[in-house]
Amino acid sequence: MPAIPSSLLHLKPLFFSLPRFSSPSLALNRVRKFPIPTINPRSLSSLSSAAAAAAQSTGDNGGGGGRSGALAPPPITEVLQKIDVNPPKGTRDFPPEEMRLRTWLFHNFREVSRLFGFEEVDFPVLESEALYIRKAGEEIRDQLYCFEDRGNRRVALRPELTPSLARLVIQKGKSVSLPLKWFAVGQCWRYERMTRGRRREHYQWNMDIIGVPEVTAEAELISSIVTFFKRVGITASDVGFKVSSRKVLQEVLRRYSVPESLFSKVCIIIDKIGKIPVDEIKKDLKSAGVSEEAVEELLQVLSIKSLTKLEEILGGAGEAVADLKQLFSLAEKFGYAEWIEFDASIVRGLAYYTGIVFEGFDREGKLRAICGGGRYDRLLSTFGGDDLPACGFGFGDAVIVELLKDRGLLPELSLQIENIVCALDVDLQGAAARVASILREQSQTVDLVLESKPLKWVFKRAARINAHRLILVGNSEWQRGMVVVKILSSGEQYEVKLDELV
Amino acid sequence: MPAIPSSLLHLKPLFFSLPRFSSPSLALNRVRKFPIPTINPRSLSSLSSAAAAAAQSTGDNGGGGGRSGALAPPPITEVLQKIDVNPPKGTRDFPPEEMRLRTWLFHNFREVSRLFGFEEVDFPVLESEALYIRKAGEEIRDQLYCFEDRGNRRVALRPELTPSLARLVIQKGKSVSLPLKWFAVGQCWRYERMTRGRRREHYQWNMDIIGVPEVTAEAELISSIVTFFKRVGITASDVGFKVSSRKVLQEVLRRYSVPESLFSKVCIIIDKIGKIPVDEIKKDLKSAGVSEEAVEELLQVLSIKSLTKLEEILGGAGEAVADLKQLFSLAEKFGYAEWIEFDASIVRGLAYYTGIVFEGFDREGKLRAICGGGRYDRLLSTFGGDDLPACGFGFGDAVIVELLKDRGLLPELSLQIENIVCALDVDLQGAAARVASILREQSQTVDLVLESKPLKWVFKRAARINAHRLILVGNSEWQRGMVVVKILSSGEQYEVKLDELV
Repeated sequence: MPAIPSSLLHLKPLFFSLPRFSSPSLALNRVRKFPIPTINPRSLSSLSSAAAAAAQSTGDNGGGGGRSGALAPPPITEVLQKIDVNPPKGTRDFPPEEMRLRTWLFHNFREVSRLFGFEEVDFPVLESEALYIRKAGEEIRDQLYCFEDRGNRRVALRPELTPSLARLVIQKGKSVSLPLKWFAVGQCWRYERMTRGRRREHYQWNMDIIGVPEVTAEAELISSIVTFFKRVGITASDVGFKVSSRKVLQEVLRRYSVPESLFSKVCIIIDKIGKIPVDEIKKDLKSAGVSEEAVEELLQVLSIKSLTKLEEILGGAGEAVADLKQLFSLAEKFGYAEWIEFDASIVRGLAYYTGIVFEGFDREGKLRAICGGGRYDRLLSTFGGDDLPACGFGFGDAVIVELLKDRGLLPELSLQIENIVCALDVDLQGAAARVASILREQSQTVDLVLESKPLKWVFKRAARINAHRLILVGNSEWQRGMVVVKILSSGEQYEVKLDELV
Repeated sequence: MPAIPSSLLHLKPLFFSLPRFSSPSLALNRVRKFPIPTINPRSLSSLSSAAAAAAQSTGDNGGGGGRSGALAPPPITEVLQKIDVNPPKGTRDFPPEEMRLRTWLFHNFREVSRLFGFEEVDFPVLESEALYIRKAGEEIRDQLYCFEDRGNRRVALRPELTPSLARLVIQKGKSVSLPLKWFAVGQCWRYERMTRGRRREHYQWNMDIIGVPEVTAEAELISSIVTFFKRVGITASDVGFKVSSRKVLQEVLRRYSVPESLFSKVCIIIDKIGKIPVDEIKKDLKSAGVSEEAVEELLQVLSIKSLTKLEEILGGAGEAVADLKQLFSLAEKFGYAEWIEFDASIVRGLAYYTGIVFEGFDREGKLRAICGGGRYDRLLSTFGGDDLPACGFGFGDAVIVELLKDRGLLPELSLQIENIVCALDVDLQGAAARVASILREQSQTVDLVLESKPLKWVFKRAARINAHRLILVGNSEWQRGMVVVKILSSGEQYEVKLDELV
């Protein structure tokens, strides 16, 4: 087959105004042939001007390409009502730009977890509702996204990951060696009738340590979050951790002989401080069975922001002060002391915490808690298992993105495909596919142009996908076992032998 | 502080039989001190024997470590009924070993998609039920995992990803430039009352091309699946693709003046060939309104396995034959002809396919379809949008794993953490954490031992996590700014300066 002697210097208007394949007549005419110019190195200036023309034109679907129309056959599936094109209320789609951000974020979650020697796990997004039925009046239970399945079982879209983790730990029993260091990145759901601009789903990064009773475990968890923050550019002047221990409350309650069985309930009420009026907190505590005297002492203790002051009030003998002192001493030694501060008002909103609790907060005070966690040494027995010392944290994907945006730290994550490969003749589609294969075998990303499109369109697409190189498969070069490579940033253009293409 | 003069040569029995920290009295005694031997290079033989002792002992929780008991405080959360520790029926947990396989599989899905220039997207796992209500009698609709949410909206756990993708494409409208090349890896659900050992959820890899009417799009999709198979070690002698076109059926139906509106329904009935008796198929087709003559011709055409034979019967003028011939010609040029074969009986079980359909099958015939896909040029209009040419495939995570297992191609994916760092004295916990930080800053994975454990335990853990190095932080070395590094494979041991640790 003789090469068609042509170059872009002789580009005919026809070439740029080829009928779209949306034309039904053409769509059927699958074997097309038209005079395709091959490129020789001297045609560089023309290629550049085609690129310039592409760059000048606005919009993505101009030129001979764009939104291809429908094929000829009449509708063959029945027409339904027009659907709502938005995702269900409170949920998100992840189009490519959102997905790139999510992938970047999850990659950082995973990388940090791996650096700390944690293993990834996951659980069903749909769990038995029983896993979340705790009687402490948590917000998380009121907002449970639960329903009855077709087999009349009560199920729920998981509101958090920890109960599933506890279930799996019990299931694994003696077959696993402790400590377990597990992490997960999973979607969690809640159902809110009221719309407060909050979503019904979010992704949560969890890291948990099972089997370590020492506060070193909490210290290591906070260390991993600090590592994450540093990786994404957040400093100790942006965020901090407020730390306390549920044992503080426990010691106060004991002093007033409040029964242990009220503990979780009291914690959940106290977690609402700052969210509802303090008079309501007092009323709730009293109706839960806490004496007026105890309520006053509790509220006073909760206002303490200094560990020394806490020790003065509780004495130095109890576990609450000992745990906290150890954590602050470890934070010093681990090198993140400037990130953490004691705040007795931190109790966290989950019923099952038993010891140290912490939450990450934005120092500007604009955002909700960034993450939170603590020790939950008694969770397994509430499921009928043997208790194991355990602690962990949850870190959502929403507040961190707000914070990064606010601090100008969101990464630039544009689409970038290394090569765009284009046949200059429909008969060379297979040749172009082979070129694409050669590059892909070398782990290079390739966008193969699948339609016969004018070069103007190809340059536009190359710009949109941030391609580094355009590789043109033309007849005359192909016959010599060559392709034309154009470096798009510099405009440099050369021929390369197929087996030297790297 | 003077170094404690000791070495492993002088290891006292006390050291290996330290009380567990499960002992409540010890658990409270947080600041412990015991004679910890530091290590000097000459003690290599002793370290080796400790390692040997660890290796000899079986089980994971022997020695002085293992399953730490509960902390002292009495239960503080209310005891619930004993929960079922298994995930809900038909769902899976992903403990670390399963998760490693899933991560490996998804990584391959993603890598192949990226090599082909596809962008990742995702959609809510919970969608409006309306997205899946098609009237063609698909199995997928009968098995819809649907329910009413607390706001009385009909919702469903997505049974497949394509309708969500179509929804997003309509939503994006003119803001995106065509063609779109999108991929997704997402969990899909179905509800089966009958247990046939099939699960209620699986993950599915989808790749879709929106905006390309040419068969090159289908050719590229099949090429990407072939690339995936090759990457994981599967050859053309293990699997193949059966290919046909829905236009074959369409042309036969037209010949017998069967209305277009029956098309999807007929396809869904025909997809059951081989699954239910042929007499039942015939009965279903007749009651759908297809004449006896047409049914006979349909069934005859469906038995054709040769494109030449098909052309003889349908003639060469129609789109069915032209599309298929072009696809086989492209397969030849793309270099995967040996992977594909024509089989008119392939119609696929989804209502919305309009053109080429294909499925990946195990050549030994033991497994269900590995993947399947096709062209769906009319889906968008069923949702009230403007149609766009589109094709895609779904590739589940279940059958491929069975196949890989069967062929001995499942990768060995053991946990591997590069370093295990251990303080030889509780006071050196912070020092050990600093050593861990130094290594993690160099992107090395580190398991930091968080408890005071005998060396025997540490060696066992090192073996379990396949650590390459054990780094011991002892008093005398630390004072000289050094740590002891032991290469676990060779037993080689040396001191390294902290700032030279790489």
